[in-house]
Amino acid sequence: MTNVDKSYITDAFKSLQDSICDSIESMDGGSSFKHDDWDREGGGGGRTRVITGGNVIEKGGVNFSAVYGDTPVKITDALGLNSGQFYATGVSIVLHPSNPHVPIIHMNIRYFEMSDGTWWFGGGIDLTPHYVIPNDAKYFHQQLKAVCDKHYPTYYSEFKPWADEYFFIKHRNESRGIGGIFFDRLTEKDEISKNDRFEFVQDVGRIFSPTYHEIVQRNRDKSYSDAHKKWQLLRRGRYVEFNLVYDKGTKFGLDTGGRVESILMSLPPHTDWDYDYQPPSNSPEEKTLTFLKKPIDWLTHPNGLAD
Amino acid sequence: MTNVDKSYITDAFKSLQDSICDSIESMDGGSSFKHDDWDREGGGGGRTRVITGGNVIEKGGVNFSAVYGDTPVKITDALGLNSGQFYATGVSIVLHPSNPHVPIIHMNIRYFEMSDGTWWFGGGIDLTPHYVIPNDAKYFHQQLKAVCDKHYPTYYSEFKPWADEYFFIKHRNESRGIGGIFFDRLTEKDEISKNDRFEFVQDVGRIFSPTYHEIVQRNRDKSYSDAHKKWQLLRRGRYVEFNLVYDKGTKFGLDTGGRVESILMSLPPHTDWDYDYQPPSNSPEEKTLTFLKKPIDWLTHPNGLAD
Repeated sequence: MTNVDKSYITDAFKSLQDSICDSIESMDGGSSFKHDDWDREGGGGGRTRVITGGNVIEKGGVNFSAVYGDTPVKITDALGLNSGQFYATGVSIVLHPSNPHVPIIHMNIRYFEMSDGTWWFGGGIDLTPHYVIPNDAKYFHQQLKAVCDKHYPTYYSEFKPWADEYFFIKHRNESRGIGGIFFDRLTEKDEISKNDRFEFVQDVGRIFSPTYHEIVQRNRDKSYSDAHKKWQLLRRGRYVEFNLVYDKGTKFGLDTGGRVESILMSLPPHTDWDYDYQPPSNSPEEKTLTFLKKPIDWLTHPNGLAD
Repeated sequence: MTNVDKSYITDAFKSLQDSICDSIESMDGGSSFKHDDWDREGGGGGRTRVITGGNVIEKGGVNFSAVYGDTPVKITDALGLNSGQFYATGVSIVLHPSNPHVPIIHMNIRYFEMSDGTWWFGGGIDLTPHYVIPNDAKYFHQQLKAVCDKHYPTYYSEFKPWADEYFFIKHRNESRGIGGIFFDRLTEKDEISKNDRFEFVQDVGRIFSPTYHEIVQRNRDKSYSDAHKKWQLLRRGRYVEFNLVYDKGTKFGLDTGGRVESILMSLPPHTDWDYDYQPPSNSPEEKTLTFLKKPIDWLTHPNGLAD
């Protein structure tokens, strides 16, 4: 059996970053990733990959990092850890498409270990459509359920509600999007080995490209108006609010002196905030908001809404 | 001598909101305030005034509120208070001009008291130019120093550094703008009475309009290019980062269930985030960044930069 140690995991995450970047470039067809490699003062570094001005992607990033060193007190306190050396590696993706009919997508997989032997995996995938289309939401959740079911019978039923809870914008009383799966601090448990956890996390990474590409294909050629674009910019405002007010990865990165431009590549290229914007009655925009009020079981949701 | 109680203070803050709105409308000449009055479930409410699409102001708000009721535990914990009833009233202003040569301005004055008799005033004014002009920064700080000096000899030397510290965007290692004055929890002290504090806070409110109008007059007719506008949108991104990541008033409001649209009227109408944007060498944009690296004594700063 493979020794699932940090260098093995790190190499696998790097390969995954490469293959996802290739896949996005090929799907987009109009732009390619700019490469920014960086070193961290306290140890380690990262490979930031940013794509802008594509046929599909207006701005997006596929970031890899592997950082290590003395664990800041802020981290040991926040995570309830003993002091010591940490090692953290992961891949983080946020893609902002130009067409408002194509959803924003986010994926993250990460591995963390301490010098005392503590370790865990975390991550997830979630989708933020500017216009919610139940058929697409169903497809998205079917894909996630399939990858979960392949690894453990209760993964989807645990990780889907976790995403609903995590990606909730409390002050707006509104979900960021249609959720997905979210998990954190997955370690050995009962019959689930470290290798099992790692295989699962890798499969989450592998499902990213085919799943998003299918949703892109369904929507990329739809025409859109200025009103659609305006709505997209307002929804991106909510995305910013979530990331800057609530997102733990963002706060963690900013608090601990991470590379700011890599962390904040998640922010949209253009964003609007209108005072007290209310979508017209019975508009697709208003309909989308009704889908964000509470968690929905998209697998069984009646497909009542034509896009 | 006047009884400076909460209803007296509340009425004065309301009048100030009215006079500032009148003054901004007259200065702008192209738009007027939309009035939104609202009630708070637990007690009190507010008068939100928002202006958009003006000759000068692209989006701005002048908000008054007076709220009271049981003090949420989050507040008593955060402020180190005994449980009981609170009363809080204040005026908050943020103006985002359309011309990048006109600075963003923020002003807030507030009064807080508890049923056990604890009370304080807080507030301040600060300026966020997209392009820093030392002459304007000097004028701005002269105005603030004058109002401080009128009331207490050490006010400016205390409240100016407080603003420098408060309006600092740690993760960017950059000040939000050229600062101003900031103060909090001003209560009776030595020979300074409650009435003295109140007169000072009112004067801060009164200096707002003439000071901002002078700076607007100096810059409103300057022509600007797409590049100037782009820079403005990027600087607004920093404003969003400050308000959502650090600003205590915003966090406090969101945490305690304040009216979200009134709190977030401070967010700019259009905002950009470019990955790792670097201004050209020796450009006015790069020059502006050099002014934001550390606190500057604008009163004595050599006026080396032509605008």
